[in-house]
Amino acid sequence: MSELTNRLVAGLPAGSVVLDPAVTEAYRHDMAGFCEAGEPAVLVFPSTVEEVQHVLRTASELRVPVVPQGARTGLSGGANAVADCILLSLVKMDRILELDPVNRIAVVEPGVVNAVLSRAAEAHGLTYPPDPSSWESCTIGGNIGTGAGGLCCVKYGVTSEYVLGLDVVLADGRLLRTGRRTAKGVAGYDLTRLFVGSEGTLGVVVGAVLALRPAPAPQLALAAEFPSAAAACAAVNAVTEAGFTPSLMELMDSVVVGAVNRFGRMGLPQATKALLLVAFDGPERSRELAAVAQLCQAAGATETVPAEDQAESELLLQARRLALTAMDTLGTTMVDDVAVPRSRLAEMLVGVARIAERCGLTIGVVSHAGDGNTHPIVAFDAKDPDQVTRAMESFEAIMALGLELGGTITGEHGVGLLKRDWLARELGPVGLELQKQMKGLFDPLGILNPGKLF
Amino acid sequence: MSELTNRLVAGLPAGSVVLDPAVTEAYRHDMAGFCEAGEPAVLVFPSTVEEVQHVLRTASELRVPVVPQGARTGLSGGANAVADCILLSLVKMDRILELDPVNRIAVVEPGVVNAVLSRAAEAHGLTYPPDPSSWESCTIGGNIGTGAGGLCCVKYGVTSEYVLGLDVVLADGRLLRTGRRTAKGVAGYDLTRLFVGSEGTLGVVVGAVLALRPAPAPQLALAAEFPSAAAACAAVNAVTEAGFTPSLMELMDSVVVGAVNRFGRMGLPQATKALLLVAFDGPERSRELAAVAQLCQAAGATETVPAEDQAESELLLQARRLALTAMDTLGTTMVDDVAVPRSRLAEMLVGVARIAERCGLTIGVVSHAGDGNTHPIVAFDAKDPDQVTRAMESFEAIMALGLELGGTITGEHGVGLLKRDWLARELGPVGLELQKQMKGLFDPLGILNPGKLF
Repeated sequence: MSELTNRLVAGLPAGSVVLDPAVTEAYRHDMAGFCEAGEPAVLVFPSTVEEVQHVLRTASELRVPVVPQGARTGLSGGANAVADCILLSLVKMDRILELDPVNRIAVVEPGVVNAVLSRAAEAHGLTYPPDPSSWESCTIGGNIGTGAGGLCCVKYGVTSEYVLGLDVVLADGRLLRTGRRTAKGVAGYDLTRLFVGSEGTLGVVVGAVLALRPAPAPQLALAAEFPSAAAACAAVNAVTEAGFTPSLMELMDSVVVGAVNRFGRMGLPQATKALLLVAFDGPERSRELAAVAQLCQAAGATETVPAEDQAESELLLQARRLALTAMDTLGTTMVDDVAVPRSRLAEMLVGVARIAERCGLTIGVVSHAGDGNTHPIVAFDAKDPDQVTRAMESFEAIMALGLELGGTITGEHGVGLLKRDWLARELGPVGLELQKQMKGLFDPLGILNPGKLF
Repeated sequence: MSELTNRLVAGLPAGSVVLDPAVTEAYRHDMAGFCEAGEPAVLVFPSTVEEVQHVLRTASELRVPVVPQGARTGLSGGANAVADCILLSLVKMDRILELDPVNRIAVVEPGVVNAVLSRAAEAHGLTYPPDPSSWESCTIGGNIGTGAGGLCCVKYGVTSEYVLGLDVVLADGRLLRTGRRTAKGVAGYDLTRLFVGSEGTLGVVVGAVLALRPAPAPQLALAAEFPSAAAACAAVNAVTEAGFTPSLMELMDSVVVGAVNRFGRMGLPQATKALLLVAFDGPERSRELAAVAQLCQAAGATETVPAEDQAESELLLQARRLALTAMDTLGTTMVDDVAVPRSRLAEMLVGVARIAERCGLTIGVVSHAGDGNTHPIVAFDAKDPDQVTRAMESFEAIMALGLELGGTITGEHGVGLLKRDWLARELGPVGLELQKQMKGLFDPLGILNPGKLF
């Protein structure tokens, strides 16, 4: 065994240091499979904070890169191995340490699965809102690393709004505690939010205090069919301008609707150019849904179909959640994550359609329309070098368009490997320099997930 | 004129550089009047970003400290002058640049008064929720600097949740743009939130993109009288545990009730030991208020008085907003800002009463009870050295108690000068070292509001 392995084994329980290439191979990638991934030196599964500290101390002493991993459901390559690294999987640290209904907080280890926490909260009449599509498998640590969003964000916000405090193992193995357990607190600089979305480049999150909310009533949804993306976006803006805050407002284009129908036999209206799903979960949800139906019709909807009950509403949401999986059946996919000001959503969608035509590729778009957050999904044949080139071109053109419209290259998936060059463009020279200096401050040896973000 | 003054005058319009001691004297202090304050070298009122850049460039070249100021309504000495500094007042940069109902954002300069923005938003059916008691005079820049809260936070959260992006002039005069104009975004480290609550020690905020919300319906309030603070706190916890989220949940002790009655002739129930105000603003507010009245009675309330209408509700809230002003009539005041986990609120209040008794001082407590955020207000005679000593002792004992109960030394007022030693205790050695390194990264010459926070 190498010195690295010897040192790791000396401080970790039997079985938590894995060298078997058949196992490590499976851990090289997150779900951005087409991104580069190096060969790891070793894969470790610590179970305690002290064990993570041992790993980081060892890594610092031997100058070995460390790539922290959750469930590897990320879409930007942020959890991909770099050459000769330690893959640090946090999935065995999966305990919910506290769930406190009076203070409405949960204290968790990073490997807790999002849905497991959500269900545990539900048992107390509470909810942990952030709900990425991968919520049944993704971990809270991964959600914090990427700053994950989801379908509920239009009403309930994203991960960063629910992280009150963190325990973080620093590059040199020291333990940092940030933030608080209280509802409010402004003592010093907000290091907690600095770690949210930092993709494991500043430290390793080993514990989190999360805010919970009272569980809302079940959602009531409607589906509205539009003759064009522009008409659907006009409806989205009308709903917002009228002062409504739906619990969900999602848009699927005809490519996605077709893929979902073929994959899941969901019976969505196939002829529509743009299908808008809107839901409410407040006490006046029936009245609100009726008003939204009228606004959709005024914006040109050819059909508005309110769900009869909760079961039908749930079916609509399930169809939406299938979007990415369904698109995966069309080829290798590259998932973009551009968010634009809500008022520019139509321009974004029209622009993406033009890019698809120009590049001669299939691009389906699913959007968290209420947030202006679009996921154009480029489907291509990864074995055809020409298609790969065109896929990359379309992907870049989409991000350029997003920035041109006053948007951001990533609403909720993170930068990872996929958007490094674009992060520099979005931040500009002053911002980029400060961010790199900050990285240097937390990680002077450059061992924490190197090559990600920058 | 000194070289400093010459250089400043050369880059600023006539009248925006003030040396007259009669004027500068008034700008030496924020509302923590008993905190130390140095003699400023000069007071400047820039009107543009470029003028702020000129001030910072000059300060860097000449190594002169800069103290940014809003309306100086802060309570921790964060805006107090340091010796020979440039007092940099942002109050003339007071334009609302955009108010966009489709994207629900406002783009503002730092000198915009909180209430001015709130009213402008109201005209579009929107609201900017953070509402510190000083909302009629405090500025958005000051709110961002301190991470201000208010009465609405129990439902709507604090300033940091509404700041999407910032324009910041750095110590060397460069302009940094952070964050975004979109609803969501996770591109790189969250520098935006790093500046919120940083009290002018990392850079000078010269512009902000703020999130707005649809305006809620008017609040309906009730007042409940309790025979003890502990009983009132039990009611607060019962309300939370039952899944209610009031738009306001405030607690006043008998000292504060007495002061408010004497000062404002408000006719609050004088005999009560603890007066709890609860309000709702949702469509089911009448039903919710009735349920809360029952929970209060079950917790031992001797009387629950629902407001008959909005006007009566507004009167109750007005009485609450008078608390600090009314306490000021009892002597010099020192306002503490300890937040504890909601479940520990009763222990906090009982402990403060013991501290008041031990120190032989009047301490009134007003709490954002729903957030566990208490403001013990120590009233003393600043001319009596013995009382000053005891006031300081009680103030420190209150913060020690807060930390002991798992709380924070500041829920929403910031650290300033008043709590520097306590910030170090709350952060611990690892956190403190990192925060100081971060300060060094942004302000290598140490010219930005030196002596504040650390």
